[in-house]
Amino acid sequence: MKILLIVCDGLGDRPIRELNYRTPLSAAEKPNLERLSLIGIKGIMDAIAPGVRPGSAPAHLALFGYDPKKYYTGRGIFEALGLGLELKEGDIVFRFNFATVDDRMVVVDRRAGRIGEHTAELAEALNEISIPGVELVFKEAVEHRGVIIMRGEGLSWKVSDTDPGKTGLKVKKCEPLDSSPEAIKTASLVDSIVKESYRVLKDHWVNRDRVKRGLPPANVVLPRGASILTKVEGFEERYKLKASCIAGGTLYKGVAKFVGMNVLNVAGATGTYETNYKAKVEASLKALTGSDFVFLHFKQPDLAGEDGDYKRKIEVIQRIDEALEPLITLEDTLIVITADHSTPCSIKTHSADPVPIMMCGEEVRRDYVEGFDEIKAAKGGLNRIRGLDLMPIVLDVVNLTEKYGA
Amino acid sequence: MKILLIVCDGLGDRPIRELNYRTPLSAAEKPNLERLSLIGIKGIMDAIAPGVRPGSAPAHLALFGYDPKKYYTGRGIFEALGLGLELKEGDIVFRFNFATVDDRMVVVDRRAGRIGEHTAELAEALNEISIPGVELVFKEAVEHRGVIIMRGEGLSWKVSDTDPGKTGLKVKKCEPLDSSPEAIKTASLVDSIVKESYRVLKDHWVNRDRVKRGLPPANVVLPRGASILTKVEGFEERYKLKASCIAGGTLYKGVAKFVGMNVLNVAGATGTYETNYKAKVEASLKALTGSDFVFLHFKQPDLAGEDGDYKRKIEVIQRIDEALEPLITLEDTLIVITADHSTPCSIKTHSADPVPIMMCGEEVRRDYVEGFDEIKAAKGGLNRIRGLDLMPIVLDVVNLTEKYGA
Repeated sequence: MKILLIVCDGLGDRPIRELNYRTPLSAAEKPNLERLSLIGIKGIMDAIAPGVRPGSAPAHLALFGYDPKKYYTGRGIFEALGLGLELKEGDIVFRFNFATVDDRMVVVDRRAGRIGEHTAELAEALNEISIPGVELVFKEAVEHRGVIIMRGEGLSWKVSDTDPGKTGLKVKKCEPLDSSPEAIKTASLVDSIVKESYRVLKDHWVNRDRVKRGLPPANVVLPRGASILTKVEGFEERYKLKASCIAGGTLYKGVAKFVGMNVLNVAGATGTYETNYKAKVEASLKALTGSDFVFLHFKQPDLAGEDGDYKRKIEVIQRIDEALEPLITLEDTLIVITADHSTPCSIKTHSADPVPIMMCGEEVRRDYVEGFDEIKAAKGGLNRIRGLDLMPIVLDVVNLTEKYGA
Repeated sequence: MKILLIVCDGLGDRPIRELNYRTPLSAAEKPNLERLSLIGIKGIMDAIAPGVRPGSAPAHLALFGYDPKKYYTGRGIFEALGLGLELKEGDIVFRFNFATVDDRMVVVDRRAGRIGEHTAELAEALNEISIPGVELVFKEAVEHRGVIIMRGEGLSWKVSDTDPGKTGLKVKKCEPLDSSPEAIKTASLVDSIVKESYRVLKDHWVNRDRVKRGLPPANVVLPRGASILTKVEGFEERYKLKASCIAGGTLYKGVAKFVGMNVLNVAGATGTYETNYKAKVEASLKALTGSDFVFLHFKQPDLAGEDGDYKRKIEVIQRIDEALEPLITLEDTLIVITADHSTPCSIKTHSADPVPIMMCGEEVRRDYVEGFDEIKAAKGGLNRIRGLDLMPIVLDVVNLTEKYGA
């Protein structure tokens, strides 16, 4: 039996007054999810633990069965992997913003006017920065963002961020977060990188051109979120399952890559509102022929939640539901539909409210709960589980668990 | 208030297509369980943890409140105790099969034709095997099975099995599973025992007779599942409850004995389909007069599950239900009805699907869920608990818990 895990990012919500205190998921018209509910078992899930408000990366780690307490050191490594960079064990990875500073290193714009063009050229220029004994890689990401890989002996990820958090303040000195010589050395290297970035970028043609056009120059990088790539047992090695990922967002591809999934590129899978829902579902079904496990990620409910736009959240849920139509006749596959966390429109950020989960397939107990939303799911046959319970339960349904004792 | 814990082994199941996706428990006519449900609270339970597929021994340990991570080293000690053998702390116990080998120690029949007669005589003969400094006891069990007790200084249970798992292969050398001198010594002793068993058994009259009748001789023992008897605080000492066990199967008697229960022998309690259900219930009610806690075990749902026979599973559940009739009028007793694990007919083995649980009594919150099956139980007032939660909850209902803090 194959496994299709569909994560609708930020799907869970809180009651919306305008919806008569229903949630967007509850209010959405979702005939396919409702049909699937008839052959499924439902429940609610705390990705990490009750009351713990998860970031997307640790939540996904938990859903894949990797304890975030052990494997999550920061978001950088996942962003880097998601960008397609090759990492080695022990690599220190930072995320950074291109920002604008004046000549006293006071931050004028933390995002360099949300620069979205020619950042590849800027990153290319940054790659000329050289530090003896340390290999450095700069790579641009979406808009004003990027990542830095730092590779070498005696480095640590226990260092602080350089972004002062608001304009009018000086770039923050990078501080070691423990007293190890590695952290002290790395913090000092980060400060050098910031200084060097200003030297390399301030007169770069991209910035001269921006200044001419009245735009803030991207004349510095502000590293933050240091993380380290630790050794990890891959999904296939651990579960004996060949796994593929279909996602638009870099972070999700990165987490999938981290656990050794095969990350597929699907035309139209953008991680934005403009994603091609149907293309992603079709690609997932196709991927199931060559994989045992397919992870399909939809970012859009989270975007709508962060925009505080419940109407849009309803709309994207309905678009996902439409796209799921081929699942109704899918055979020999355990379908799991859930989320990594809630993103209530009322607070425009992640919350710890548990997410609904539904598992559908021949071997799954049917709980006769019709429909799928946060409250109906809570009445289902799974009751309340945790993210780290998901893979053991899934593996047992497809009969791949070892017996504990005799 | 007294406590009656009824474990219906392997009771939980998965949907059966022929039952319109209901489970055997759901489909069974069970008027007494339904009447009991009206005065009870229900829930689902993971004997070990969600997604963990438990063996019967660790599952029962958990139900009795003994953490299997600490107390479960293997099945051997429970089989030995269940056979009525007296064990001492530190005893190493193996299970073994009588098997058939040729003169090059190649296994011809792993179960010696499922020999079921004169194994007592064979075990008696094996007891002449002598190893300096080590006390050895061989004891036959059901069919081709038996146990070996190894008692002495410097022994370990960290050794591998000798059964090659299929015919046509040589008996496996016993390997130490860690680098301790104890494990190395024990592994070498096990190899000697195998060799000696062949010497003692090959010309035994039972085997000469079997060969004459064209049956495979039981000319070797294949030890496996080494385990050790650790110190354990008894049930009465731990809970201040005098406990009795009524079970047919050796293993369940053994686990009960391990935790210090008084194991009663009931005529007709066989651990097979032919068990006398009513006699067991009557004996339990009688035992309740002299005990505070009675553990009543029914093996039959598990047998039917392992046979993949859902009709038979329905039938044995109905037989159990009939036998439970006297419970309707039982007073001053907390009745707990549950299972140690699920044994779905579709997979003919244990699964990690949670088991239903029902607790009935005057002091128990009534959850108004009518009936008792895997799905209805999940809607009950207990929600989802773990095996190790059971004893603390039971003790609290009967008001025997200590307050945590003040």
